This record gives sequence, C-alpha cells and structure tokens, in this order.
Amino acid sequence: MYVSVVGGEHCSKEIYEMAKEVGRKIAEMGAILITGGRGGVMEAACKGAKEKGGVTVGILPGSSRHEGNKYLDYVIVTGIGYARNVLVVLNGDIVIAINGHYGTLSEIAFALEFGKPVYGLLSWEVGIKNFNNVDELFEEIRKDLKINV
Amino acid sequence: MYVSVVGGEHCSKEIYEMAKEVGRKIAEMGAILITGGRGGVMEAACKGAKEKGGVTVGILPGSSRHEGNKYLDYVIVTGIGYARNVLVVLNGDIVIAINGHYGTLSEIAFALEFGKPVYGLLSWEVGIKNFNNVDELFEEIRKDLKINV
Amino acid sequence: MYVSVVGGEHCSKEIYEMAKEVGRKIAEMGAILITGGRGGVMEAACKGAKEKGGVTVGILPGSSRHEGNKYLDYVIVTGIGYARNVLVVLNGDIVIAINGHYGTLSEIAFALEFGKPVYGLLSWEVGIKNFNNVDELFEEIRKDLKINV
Amino acid sequence: MYVSVVGGEHCSKEIYEMAKEVGRKIAEMGAILITGGRGGVMEAACKGAKEKGGVTVGILPGSSRHEGNKYLDYVIVTGIGYARNVLVVLNGDIVIAINGHYGTLSEIAFALEFGKPVYGLLSWEVGIKNFNNVDELFEEIRKDLKINV
Repeated sequence: MYVSVVGGEHCSKEIYEMAKEVGRKIAEMGAILITGGRGGVMEAACKGAKEKGGVTVGILPGSSRHEGNKYLDYVIVTGIGYARNVLVVLNGDIVIAINGHYGTLSEIAFALEFGKPVYGLLSWEVGIKNFNNVDELFEEIRKDLKINV
Repeated sequence: MYVSVVGGEHCSKEIYEMAKEVGRKIAEMGAILITGGRGGVMEAACKGAKEKGGVTVGILPGSSRHEGNKYLDYVIVTGIGYARNVLVVLNGDIVIAINGHYGTLSEIAFALEFGKPVYGLLSWEVGIKNFNNVDELFEEIRKDLKINV
Repeated sequence: MYVSVVGGEHCSKEIYEMAKEVGRKIAEMGAILITGGRGGVMEAACKGAKEKGGVTVGILPGSSRHEGNKYLDYVIVTGIGYARNVLVVLNGDIVIAINGHYGTLSEIAFALEFGKPVYGLLSWEVGIKNFNNVDELFEEIRKDLKINV
Repeated sequence: MYVSVVGGEHCSKEIYEMAKEVGRKIAEMGAILITGGRGGVMEAACKGAKEKGGVTVGILPGSSRHEGNKYLDYVIVTGIGYARNVLVVLNGDIVIAINGHYGTLSEIAFALEFGKPVYGLLSWEVGIKNFNNVDELFEEIRKDLKINV
C-alpha cells in the first residue's frame, strides 16, 4: 500500500511533530510513504517513517534530486513544477493532509477528484474528515481499511 | 488581458446562464477568455464571450481537438490529463470560479498558490471573495482592475 | 488547420531567414502557427507569419507570458518545462522541423510517435522527409494536403 | 546511482534477452533501475534486475499502478501520458537506450538535451555511442564511471 502525505513546506514545530508521528504510523502499517519530497510536513513524515524502518518516496517539482529532503529512500524528479502535485496524490491509495496552505488544498482537491480516501489533520475544511490528533486519525484509517495494527 | 473561468463540466441551468453572462462581460472588457475547453460552465462562458465578439481559448486535458466545445476560437490540447488544470489558471491574469466541484477547487487552489486574484460566483468558500450574482462580481473586478466599462 | 514549427532557440542567420519564409507560407495557407514561443526559429516563423497577417500561438515552458517572443498573438504558459515540447507537436496537424538540436529531435520523435506528418528543413535524418529549401518543402506539403495555393 | 533504461514496449526475443542482461548488470553495479514501467524492453530490464536482487522503479504514463509490469518494486503513476517520457530520462544519472522506436528516440533526445550520458544498444544513430552487445556497452560505462565491477 502507498500512503501520500501532503502538507506545507513550512510548518510550526507542533505540526512537524504531528507529521513525524504520522510517518511513524505509516511505516508501522507497512505502507510506502509518498510525499512531495521537500521540507516541513513532507520532511517530518519521512523522518518519522525512517525511524520505524519504513520506505519513503519523494516526488519533486524540479529536476534535481538534491532538492529532496534527507529522509528519502527514492527520489523521483519531475521537472513539471506545480503539476507534480497531481502525481503526489495520484500515487497514494489514501491521502493524509496535514494542515497546509494552498498547495495542500490543491492536493486535497485532486485526491477528492480522483475518488481517493482523504484524511485531514487540522487541515482544510472542504468536506473531508478532519482530526485533531494522530491517534484518532489512524483509528479511523484502520477502521476504514479494516486493519488491526 | 487573459481571464480564466473555471467551473464544472456539468452544471445546472441557472449556473449555465450565469457563466454565459460572465463570458459576455469578459468579452466586453476586451479580455481573452481562457477555459478548460469542455462543457458546462466552460462552454457557457465561451458561448457568452462569442455572443459579444470575444476571443476564446480552451486548454484540453486530452489530445484531441474535437473534445473541445463548439465556442472555442483556439483549442490547445495537452495530453497531460488533470495536470492541465494547472495550465488553465496559470494562463489567467485573474481567475473567476463559478460554482464547481473538486476540479474547480483544485484550480482555485492553484490560482491562490500562484498569487492570482480569484473571484468566486457561488463557489468554494476557501478564503476567496464569493459573489451571488454576476453584476456584483464584475463591479468588484472593475474596481480592483481600475477599469471603467 | 494548425501547423507546428519546431527548431532551435538559437540559429544561424540563414536558418532564421528560412524559418521566416516558412512562417509567411503558413500564414498564406490560412493556417494557425504553433511554436514553442521562444527565440530563434520560433521567433522567425512567428515574425514571418505576422508579416502575412497570420495568427501565431506560442506554448512556453515557463509560467511567465513575458518569456514569449514579440510576434505572438496568443501566449500559452505551461510551467511544465521540457514536457511542453509534447504540447507543441500535439497541437499541430502537421509539424515542420527546421534544423535544430536535441530539443527539436525530441519534438520530431513525438510527432512521429503521434503519427503526425513531419517535414524537415535541413533537419535531423531520422526517417522524415528533409528538404533543402522552403519552396520544395511547401510543394510537398501542398501535394500531401491536396491544397492549391 | 539511478540508471534509466529506455526501449520499445514491443521487441524481438533477441532484444528482450539483451535488455534482461542489461538489467542484470545494472543490479550488479548496485544501481537503481528506472524504466517506463511497461512491457518489452522495460519489462525485460526489470526482470533481469530482479534476478540479481536489484531495485526497480517504473514511471507509468497512465494513472493505474496495475499497468506496470510485474518486476517493479516501486510504481510511480503520472497520468500525464507521453510527457512521462521526460521523467523517465530525467531520473537517470545515465541513460541506456536499447533498440526502440519513436518513443525511445524522444527519450534519447531529452537525455541529450539534459546533458545525460547516453549509451545505445542497437539503437538510434543520432550521435550517441551505439554498441552491438551488452558486454561492450558495460565495458564503456564502467570506464566512463571509473567503476571496477
């Protein structure tokens, strides 16, 4: 299973910690983590996933692999700029949106358009299930996926 | 000036009429109308623009020009699927969102990300100025653009 | 009819003149000229087309309209970098390759992949019909298209 | 190190065997294999790489992971159609072109445009080094990369 985590390149310390915890839980589920490969929420999720031995993939807007954060196992460069947001969500079986700004909103929108399950953590209120903490979020995900972890 | 109009491929009769009126007013401003080139709101805006002698450009997701609506002067095919939403808003100096579903939300999000002025007509409440009728919408646009039309 | 002209952003004076003549002839055929919108061969073709009252469309790799040459009637920005080469040829009913380097080769390759008729003018020898002068090139195009101009 | 292998979705049995051998050698070098993820040369290279315990990544034109061949460890869907060819070569530190048709030619062209080292195996004669057998090809690659394997 692939799980996409979307969120801002810049975020508060609290959101960073939450995103790290999300990454840990994705790794514990045995899923591959997909992100946009940059800093902030993306970096935090990757860092968390690596702490738990998970696999991390970053899909970058630019064409240089070195623009990726240091917790990526596999870096995919695209060179297509903002259009890479489409790829980030297209590659997730489910999408987790953590807080975030307009870029994150575009990713939530595409995920909904693609009919992917979208889970928010203190994120945009655009008809998605939003949670206040990581435990509640994963309780819901496990219930939806019928996973006992 | 280029004005992008985004909105659903399927819409109610009321929204269709509103979109047609938006197209007319864009043509009267002397602006080039950019849309995603398909049906619904996109078609209506193009139809309205053509009634007033405006110029219409459609940027299609697929690779066949024949998928465009019949009110397009210039059809640009992209073959990049949903990623073409990025192009639709990138080409507008301002963006008008009319009602719409998730695809429209993705376009509003990109427009905001790109720092474009975004005006909504009964559209998503995500921090954009939303209006209930076409006249109020264009009053605001003319004020912002300092146009006397 | 849309005709795509592909060729280098930098070119010799001789190639520039040839490209200008190609642009003139496309305008005389009543076709819309599609190019990558930049300098060199692209600019020359647009300049020629405008001399004869033709319509020119430039499809740019970047996201700023101002990167287009000054002979464009309509500028489409894409923000997808090199991937915009696909769009340049996808929008032509036929493709004319003038000289050119690797970017041009990629466009010829896509045009062949898409099954478009490709005509070369002192261009890559990869199985396309190549001509040494503009008159012979258009004689062939008119014959293929069964046009009497 | 990432090595991109490009070539046709349909190929002869001889080319298939060659591509498999190329995949094996890439795995033996410890490099990650990038392909377009489909059949023919792409599948063969992945199959060879997996025989030697390598890691394989497929970058698909469509949006369904199931369109990938069965020797892929990681499947990246793009939904951008032919424009994904750009991504396939952009992700390689070097590019190996095996035989191939117009799609392969587009990938060689982009690789050259991006300044990537390109090695051909019975492939297009467009100024790249072409080899007749896999051993000679890898002798050259090892020499260029100063690898002793």
